[in-house]
Amino acid sequence: MTHAPRVTVWNEYQHEKTNPKVAKIYPNGIHEVIAQHLRSSGLTVQTATLEQPEHGLTDAVLNQTDVLIWWGHIAHDRVQDDIVDKIHKRVLSGMGLIALHSSHFSKIFKRLMGTSCNLKWRNAGEKERLWVVAPSHAIASGLDESFEIAAEEMYGEFFDIPTPDTLVFVSWFEGGEVFRSGCCYHRGQGKVFYFRPGDQDYPTYHQPEVLHVITNAVHWAAPVAVPEVKFGRQPKPSS
Amino acid sequence: MTHAPRVTVWNEYQHEKTNPKVAKIYPNGIHEVIAQHLRSSGLTVQTATLEQPEHGLTDAVLNQTDVLIWWGHIAHDRVQDDIVDKIHKRVLSGMGLIALHSSHFSKIFKRLMGTSCNLKWRNAGEKERLWVVAPSHAIASGLDESFEIAAEEMYGEFFDIPTPDTLVFVSWFEGGEVFRSGCCYHRGQGKVFYFRPGDQDYPTYHQPEVLHVITNAVHWAAPVAVPEVKFGRQPKPSS
Amino acid sequence: MTHAPRVTVWNEYQHEKTNPKVAKIYPNGIHEVIAQHLRSSGLTVQTATLEQPEHGLTDAVLNQTDVLIWWGHIAHDRVQDDIVDKIHKRVLSGMGLIALHSSHFSKIFKRLMGTSCNLKWRNAGEKERLWVVAPSHAIASGLDESFEIAAEEMYGEFFDIPTPDTLVFVSWFEGGEVFRSGCCYHRGQGKVFYFRPGDQDYPTYHQPEVLHVITNAVHWAAPVAVPEVKFGRQPKPSS
Amino acid sequence: MTHAPRVTVWNEYQHEKTNPKVAKIYPNGIHEVIAQHLRSSGLTVQTATLEQPEHGLTDAVLNQTDVLIWWGHIAHDRVQDDIVDKIHKRVLSGMGLIALHSSHFSKIFKRLMGTSCNLKWRNAGEKERLWVVAPSHAIASGLDESFEIAAEEMYGEFFDIPTPDTLVFVSWFEGGEVFRSGCCYHRGQGKVFYFRPGDQDYPTYHQPEVLHVITNAVHWAAPVAVPEVKFGRQPKPSS
Repeated sequence: MTHAPRVTVWNEYQHEKTNPKVAKIYPNGIHEVIAQHLRSSGLTVQTATLEQPEHGLTDAVLNQTDVLIWWGHIAHDRVQDDIVDKIHKRVLSGMGLIALHSSHFSKIFKRLMGTSCNLKWRNAGEKERLWVVAPSHAIASGLDESFEIAAEEMYGEFFDIPTPDTLVFVSWFEGGEVFRSGCCYHRGQGKVFYFRPGDQDYPTYHQPEVLHVITNAVHWAAPVAVPEVKFGRQPKPSS
Repeated sequence: MTHAPRVTVWNEYQHEKTNPKVAKIYPNGIHEVIAQHLRSSGLTVQTATLEQPEHGLTDAVLNQTDVLIWWGHIAHDRVQDDIVDKIHKRVLSGMGLIALHSSHFSKIFKRLMGTSCNLKWRNAGEKERLWVVAPSHAIASGLDESFEIAAEEMYGEFFDIPTPDTLVFVSWFEGGEVFRSGCCYHRGQGKVFYFRPGDQDYPTYHQPEVLHVITNAVHWAAPVAVPEVKFGRQPKPSS
Repeated sequence: MTHAPRVTVWNEYQHEKTNPKVAKIYPNGIHEVIAQHLRSSGLTVQTATLEQPEHGLTDAVLNQTDVLIWWGHIAHDRVQDDIVDKIHKRVLSGMGLIALHSSHFSKIFKRLMGTSCNLKWRNAGEKERLWVVAPSHAIASGLDESFEIAAEEMYGEFFDIPTPDTLVFVSWFEGGEVFRSGCCYHRGQGKVFYFRPGDQDYPTYHQPEVLHVITNAVHWAAPVAVPEVKFGRQPKPSS
Repeated sequence: MTHAPRVTVWNEYQHEKTNPKVAKIYPNGIHEVIAQHLRSSGLTVQTATLEQPEHGLTDAVLNQTDVLIWWGHIAHDRVQDDIVDKIHKRVLSGMGLIALHSSHFSKIFKRLMGTSCNLKWRNAGEKERLWVVAPSHAIASGLDESFEIAAEEMYGEFFDIPTPDTLVFVSWFEGGEVFRSGCCYHRGQGKVFYFRPGDQDYPTYHQPEVLHVITNAVHWAAPVAVPEVKFGRQPKPSS
């Protein structure tokens, strides 16, 4: 690409409208906090939410999207299958996807992984520490070797995902669990990054390190000038 | 497991009944040739085909199946979604799956991969040579460093699959293409092996090396005594 | 192989002879405890130690060795380079290697990895919990989804190793660190498994789960009937 | 990095000085052709050769090197071990390394891989076609799905290397062999790319696609702002 990646931040935007505690942390929604940070780093950013027509993910919006960030939790089932089909095709054609936290159970992430994406969880405000296990990877650039989130929901192994192409972070939780927290995948001509934080009950997306990782991930997941692949019948030998 | 793996060979069983050329090569179906070989190696083997009730894949059959071998081509769409759902769950719970040749486009393989599984193809009776690129892997045991199939349908890259956890074979084709021909995946508590040969127009499943690979793959894909995973909410810390 | 894997357990055997606390835990050396367990599971097992001629690793011994288990800590430098060369060649030719705990810094492991193999450590008798992250892998067979060691030396990330071909265990430590504790590698025609426990100060090799993992690893690391590879100049085309 | 990667192209520079046929193709050496192209793409590039003091790889030069490109063939043994040690440490600390063609047998590449790095070869001017198998990877950016080299030395599998972290290219050769031709590795805090072309007897490094891949690889291999890792004893728990 010769331009900076264009990002769309999608949020189901439910908790923030119904739960005062969450509304206090994210008065304009999780998507706005993430979008604001990405804009401040010089990126072009749109937002989209579940209750907009076509969930805000019209062709017009997606045509201007190099990387789609996804946050969903209690409304996965309300995401229409035809929108999921459309996003799935776009990821396989090069659009980057960053799935955050509870989006492990989103239709689009499960479709791309092919597994149950199940895991353990416990919402007890435990300390989480994320350790970098791939220090030469672009997504770890500019971080310390670990960073801490003071209180978060616990996610624990076994996390039923395909083995990541690159595992960037492993989380330690106060209560005794570990978790593969930063997982890179090549899928078709696109790239997918799963990042474990953060639950809506905590101010995780206000934390600089978390925003830093998301920004790095946008740059990593942005499409390259992908080779045009000719699928299907090839009438003549190549050689 | 304390017993030898129990295998079910599934075949859509269409070409053999309608195409005299194919019928001559596989008079009782591709499934019977594979099943016969596996039986002769001491394994317990059932067969199942598309037009049987529930495609022959009843719970009773699957309860006696450690590894499911799959061959489909022109009738992928006729496989019922509820059967696919059931097999998907069983693979994630430990049942091995071996997807052969055109089964790259089967519903169950695509579901497990999460990608389009598309590829290039040309049916021109070209020479194929399969090179071992993981000589220490159990699926390569007892083979030479390469083996040749005199005439086969060509499959070429880009093959739109997730990067294999282990790549065992790479094919060379006379006409100028290469292909990742033997691909191992861990998915959930189960294992999946994709093996490229063979097209119904050629006597590929009569070739000893091909049968040898399938037999090795059965042993590799058979479930281990998988740890019981507790998914979902964990009320108490583990430590 | 048509026979059960033949194992040689190598130990530098220093702490047990000089430190009464260690001697009490392992009166005949760490190697004897491991060897005894493997013998009781039906395997043929030899032992070898640093101060024997050729460190006990004569050609005669190695010719009867399918899998070599290695424990070293304070005497890595005393291992002769020609013995390391010999073992390196044998691993690349098919012999399995299981490197335990502080053997991350052994000459043979560092040679095979190509990296510094450095890590964090703290010997404070902390609780360790090992989580299975590859439940379909043979080395996890028969385990629970996690197991605990009451007190151990801590090893922490970043662990400077190549990304494992398969990551089987991730450790959680009481003091806040995580560690990739069970790492599988294919190297040449051989296989290597690194397993983090146990430090000489703790009775770790008396713990059933730890011995169970080592036994599984022996079976996994045992050589297959590896394809004979022809390296070097090939005067004629293969096709 | 806030600056463009600074590159040093190292060449043993032997064939070009002694073999008139090679001198005609590369009158100023292979290194100059590669360096010239990288400079024209806006990068800062130095060159260094075997017969310079310290092989041209003084600390002053390496302190200005983000990515080191290496070409060696008949003089691997003349590279001093202390220089290899120094480069090895720098790669593990973040410097990128691109090993070209016969550098598979260079001391530095073998050290980093830990394997024999052996392969098959035949110098018969065969056609080579490189297929992209990771179309979303930065090193494939801007390429077609395959490209052809009219005549090259053949390299064939089994190539005794660790499984690449990402496999970007697979080569097809006229004579019947395949080869993993573009291999990415994370090692320590650095990155390594092996790229198979080109032999000194052919004008391979004048071919635009080959130069394009090398340029992409420079950008990929350039160090990120790597986390500072604290190895060794940690007196206090992190949590």
